Amino acid sequence: MKILTAGESHGKGLCAIVEGLPAGLKVDLEKINLELARRSGGFGRGARQQIEKDRVEFLTGVFAGETTGSPVTLWIKNQDFWEKVYAGEEKRPLSRPRPGHADLAGMQKFLIDDARTLSERASARETAIRTAVGALCKQFLEELGIRVTGFVRSVGTISCEGEIPFDEIEKRRGTLLGMSEKEAEKEAVKLIQSAEERGDTLGGIVELRAAKLKAGFGSCMSASQKLDAKIAFALMSVQAIKGVEFGLGFSASEKMGSCVQDEIFWKEGKPFRKTNRAGGIEGGMTNGEEIVVRAAMKPIPTLKRGLKTIDMQTKTPALGASERADVCAVTACEVILENVLATVLLEAVSERLGGDTLSEWKERYEKLL
Amino acid sequence: MKILTAGESHGKGLCAIVEGLPAGLKVDLEKINLELARRSGGFGRGARQQIEKDRVEFLTGVFAGETTGSPVTLWIKNQDFWEKVYAGEEKRPLSRPRPGHADLAGMQKFLIDDARTLSERASARETAIRTAVGALCKQFLEELGIRVTGFVRSVGTISCEGEIPFDEIEKRRGTLLGMSEKEAEKEAVKLIQSAEERGDTLGGIVELRAAKLKAGFGSCMSASQKLDAKIAFALMSVQAIKGVEFGLGFSASEKMGSCVQDEIFWKEGKPFRKTNRAGGIEGGMTNGEEIVVRAAMKPIPTLKRGLKTIDMQTKTPALGASERADVCAVTACEVILENVLATVLLEAVSERLGGDTLSEWKERYEKLL
Amino acid sequence: MKILTAGESHGKGLCAIVEGLPAGLKVDLEKINLELARRSGGFGRGARQQIEKDRVEFLTGVFAGETTGSPVTLWIKNQDFWEKVYAGEEKRPLSRPRPGHADLAGMQKFLIDDARTLSERASARETAIRTAVGALCKQFLEELGIRVTGFVRSVGTISCEGEIPFDEIEKRRGTLLGMSEKEAEKEAVKLIQSAEERGDTLGGIVELRAAKLKAGFGSCMSASQKLDAKIAFALMSVQAIKGVEFGLGFSASEKMGSCVQDEIFWKEGKPFRKTNRAGGIEGGMTNGEEIVVRAAMKPIPTLKRGLKTIDMQTKTPALGASERADVCAVTACEVILENVLATVLLEAVSERLGGDTLSEWKERYEKLL
Amino acid sequence: MKILTAGESHGKGLCAIVEGLPAGLKVDLEKINLELARRSGGFGRGARQQIEKDRVEFLTGVFAGETTGSPVTLWIKNQDFWEKVYAGEEKRPLSRPRPGHADLAGMQKFLIDDARTLSERASARETAIRTAVGALCKQFLEELGIRVTGFVRSVGTISCEGEIPFDEIEKRRGTLLGMSEKEAEKEAVKLIQSAEERGDTLGGIVELRAAKLKAGFGSCMSASQKLDAKIAFALMSVQAIKGVEFGLGFSASEKMGSCVQDEIFWKEGKPFRKTNRAGGIEGGMTNGEEIVVRAAMKPIPTLKRGLKTIDMQTKTPALGASERADVCAVTACEVILENVLATVLLEAVSERLGGDTLSEWKERYEKLL
Repeated sequence: MKILTAGESHGKGLCAIVEGLPAGLKVDLEKINLELARRSGGFGRGARQQIEKDRVEFLTGVFAGETTGSPVTLWIKNQDFWEKVYAGEEKRPLSRPRPGHADLAGMQKFLIDDARTLSERASARETAIRTAVGALCKQFLEELGIRVTGFVRSVGTISCEGEIPFDEIEKRRGTLLGMSEKEAEKEAVKLIQSAEERGDTLGGIVELRAAKLKAGFGSCMSASQKLDAKIAFALMSVQAIKGVEFGLGFSASEKMGSCVQDEIFWKEGKPFRKTNRAGGIEGGMTNGEEIVVRAAMKPIPTLKRGLKTIDMQTKTPALGASERADVCAVTACEVILENVLATVLLEAVSERLGGDTLSEWKERYEKLL
Repeated sequence: MKILTAGESHGKGLCAIVEGLPAGLKVDLEKINLELARRSGGFGRGARQQIEKDRVEFLTGVFAGETTGSPVTLWIKNQDFWEKVYAGEEKRPLSRPRPGHADLAGMQKFLIDDARTLSERASARETAIRTAVGALCKQFLEELGIRVTGFVRSVGTISCEGEIPFDEIEKRRGTLLGMSEKEAEKEAVKLIQSAEERGDTLGGIVELRAAKLKAGFGSCMSASQKLDAKIAFALMSVQAIKGVEFGLGFSASEKMGSCVQDEIFWKEGKPFRKTNRAGGIEGGMTNGEEIVVRAAMKPIPTLKRGLKTIDMQTKTPALGASERADVCAVTACEVILENVLATVLLEAVSERLGGDTLSEWKERYEKLL
Repeated sequence: MKILTAGESHGKGLCAIVEGLPAGLKVDLEKINLELARRSGGFGRGARQQIEKDRVEFLTGVFAGETTGSPVTLWIKNQDFWEKVYAGEEKRPLSRPRPGHADLAGMQKFLIDDARTLSERASARETAIRTAVGALCKQFLEELGIRVTGFVRSVGTISCEGEIPFDEIEKRRGTLLGMSEKEAEKEAVKLIQSAEERGDTLGGIVELRAAKLKAGFGSCMSASQKLDAKIAFALMSVQAIKGVEFGLGFSASEKMGSCVQDEIFWKEGKPFRKTNRAGGIEGGMTNGEEIVVRAAMKPIPTLKRGLKTIDMQTKTPALGASERADVCAVTACEVILENVLATVLLEAVSERLGGDTLSEWKERYEKLL
Repeated sequence: MKILTAGESHGKGLCAIVEGLPAGLKVDLEKINLELARRSGGFGRGARQQIEKDRVEFLTGVFAGETTGSPVTLWIKNQDFWEKVYAGEEKRPLSRPRPGHADLAGMQKFLIDDARTLSERASARETAIRTAVGALCKQFLEELGIRVTGFVRSVGTISCEGEIPFDEIEKRRGTLLGMSEKEAEKEAVKLIQSAEERGDTLGGIVELRAAKLKAGFGSCMSASQKLDAKIAFALMSVQAIKGVEFGLGFSASEKMGSCVQDEIFWKEGKPFRKTNRAGGIEGGMTNGEEIVVRAAMKPIPTLKRGLKTIDMQTKTPALGASERADVCAVTACEVILENVLATVLLEAVSERLGGDTLSEWKERYEKLL
């Protein structure tokens, strides 16, 4: 599989080409649109989300609702095409680089003093198309029985401490923030309201899970084939993510070895574990347990109260532009990451199974241990 | 640049081919061997390290001590070639998969009940050659003035809390554990001794830093070009790493946005920051500040006291083999990760600078903002 | 640079995403459309070409007519969207695989007995978007002074034998077939007419040239970096191409070595050659002479008179479908290949120059020998 | 699969790392050495070949004679390590670039006036390790029943015109030149002798064939997946190759379409063809027929009589160095190309079959149409 994405925040739209998907999947377009809708949700979002009613369209590769083996093009038309702002009569340069954004580094890279077009691409808007790609990938995974989900573990300092079984996660969806514990969520909502009042923003931690993925995806034979490395890449490439950890993660570094590894037992004709501290990955490969991975999202860098910066055209102090913005987008981030994870897993599936059609995939997957 | 590594823990040796290095670097072989020696050090290492006196040899690509533009082959001969153990008269199958290792997942992947050859490759021994590659890459970076270093921030629950300026880091080297604070290190040594007595193991957290890298390496234009994603991939691909974070990392998720972003000021003709909470990366690009990245190493999964497992040939309960092993290898891990980071940075440099010779690199680097 | 293309012959349209182009090129859209128009031309084309009035649109990556460094999406809307033929009420399966097309191999690959969707992608229609991508790449090359062109050397057995200087090639454009010699072209037109009368088809040979490309693009240091190999890949990947050769090409195999190599002389402060039998490539690198490469196009496999095949649904003998088709498309093929060559050259330029902006490219290119 | 090669003509040796081979192949080392011996053979070789007694060694990835899934390192030690010539007391610069070699283009690329180290890598010596890699790949193909072979079709102007069935090819081996027709070979030997007397050199044409490869390898769905393009890349990347063609190749451009395509019939439950003018590839995919591909080798550019060049240190006219050299190496070239082709085919097999073990490959291959 090869994937490229393109598109700007206020350009014509967002595009992705996905090459190498097998033929024969009856695509459920509404399931993809549903993920896009989920991505626009969550308490604490700004006015912008009201207008983000994204719908995906297949431009190529899907005929009569089915993949054909031809590269698939996904297209999300922007509701909001700022043609004139970018270049025309209403041109509005972005000369005050916003701290925490790509603005300043990008200006220095591209030798410009207006970060407008740059910020258009660096924007988290790009994750809409990555979400759509992932939602398509997820449908392939589901055909093999593999499921991917996630929830918000914390918002700011408010954290859900308990564990939650895979099957419970989706049942609890549809709440304001998508957290796994009601009480924590209530507290988090208050925290967001208070941040909003102060013109400030919040981040949080997302936990992702993948179930029913057989052992042996990824490989210990080469650093470049390690599945945890691939997942870390994908999650870290999402805007605002500053940390990724598997299973016990950072806390594994504090424990004794005897409390970190997952001992192995035998039951009903196959090995099993009583614990999953590794988060489903050993030696860079799935070990048959659930994948458990968490990502830390920093607070959104655009603050209503403004952050100190300079104007790169005048070199004088200024406040970073705030435009329309969210207070907290961890709930949306969960949706994005969940779909990004699905994409990585499908790539690992594709490499190991080879094949040209979904029926081949099913047959080959069935035969794995 | 393209890099492949190969080699097993007790095979003939370890090999890497590095394609795409520019011509004209006078390589200091002893600097590479020094990194290999550092990788064998640190308090808490097992008997094995006594015999790991690794020295690298260039098989190709370096003539008269200078790179020629031809692919470079690095070779580390194993002191310990278990020819007979693997296949010959003294064959000793590894049928009891060790929890926390690649053993069980690998057996299921390769449909085998003896993880011997598999574990040979999955072993952290492979990081010796990655360290050598990184130490070579570091010499190119140094020619451009870019420096990479690191230290041990914590061992188990014992953590160095204070900050340390870049130039202090190397000065403090040569201690038992390579931690940045003396008192913490003393405590950590005791903790390791106590773990050893109990037949247990310890992990820790490593902090890496890169200085003098100009702004704009990596790119916000494509998810696949983000430098933080590439670094996360590389670090997570190292054995035993379970988490990676940049700058404030996971703790960024707990703070308000106004305490997380790095405001921008103007001084002496260029932008500067008073803080570096982002860890030197914004929008997937270097922003001119130091790169600060931490990785969490889980405790070594081979415990002298043994962990419960099963024998895959008899399907009966067993204890995981312990063979020769370390109690704590965080100090070595720091060395490995530091060199792995150098490799990723050199790849980013190579992509942006293009070029065939080191002199071209220098000239082009000089011209960047 | 990374490029993916997508799209079907009678789907909604054709798409390409081009990642990694530098910022700062003022794109001339009409120059791209002109190449698309040229691709539809040439004596001997079928009715289909009358309706192929392709125009490209930038969906992303170009603002105010200028590249921004963001991935560029090119889109060519199909005039002819057979929605109902493919899946709807007028569904018309393609069960008789056409000899010389992808049909039969594809049916066996995808385990289907209707090659409709498959043939939609395998169709040479896909070259429209590759032409557009190449026409964009050509504009970058032109900024560096590098020029790419080509002409039809032969149609069937009618061949232009003489040599033609680079600057003459474009001057002779606009003729019926784009051949370099008038007399030959007249003969070729007659040959095409006679083939048409017999319901048959014709191929030919295209010659491509690139001028002002400095020495040292590509590399002798790795098989995977050889520029002739990359060009051969690109040209051979175009539908109906069965052979590729550089300089003397196949005829070099018949001559003595003393008549094949290009001796080296010194003039006006630099080396020069009196001959260019190598076609501008030695050791997988440009040697500063013009690139000269020829590709052989087989006759179009869809014949009005039909070719024997079988119906894969009934397993009975049948005639291959002929639908709308051309008698000879070598003139169009030249346009396609010329632009495909431009794409490969730009990729080689991009790798060697690195950089983020066109101005960096210009400065770095200037400094090369 | 990922492959890197390294090594110089008179350095320590030649190295390749091959990542992604499945576990479970019992490697026949002598079969690989036999290909290396064949590569040194053929009438018309110089003194150098007497000392090229290459033998391959596995440094990694093969235990007890069997692949393990770990990356395989192949190593060929050079008999002739010119340590002192390259850098030491006997240093002998190569300042007179030899026409037809990489020398001059490489000097301009790397900004040097001594092509010694450069020519060491650009040398055809590098094909020894590619031959060894291919010979290993061939053993995997043979396990699936796929066979690859080839012969010399012409030397200079002396050509074998007749067709030869696949099974006859290997039977005729062991002759002086490996041509398919005895009479032609006698003439070719005389031609080589006459060239030698004149201090000149000869090239020729090699024909390669692959049998029993099922339909559907490669893909029509993406230009980058076309198998003919991949083969063209690989063959063209071999030193001295100036042209590549499939099936009828260039001569297809001269014929009417009705004489070029391969009509399709039905026999014994499956489609079959009476002709194979396409050379086994349609739409960039294998069509179940034999792959037939020819490559044109130019005469060896090092001539005993010398070619005019300049000395880049003095800028004065000179004769190109001749050192030890061959008169004609087409027979060796056939061996190299045959093994290079095997490598490409194995890569295509690997992509379509996925999988980790040879037994999985066999089972999956069996199920393809």
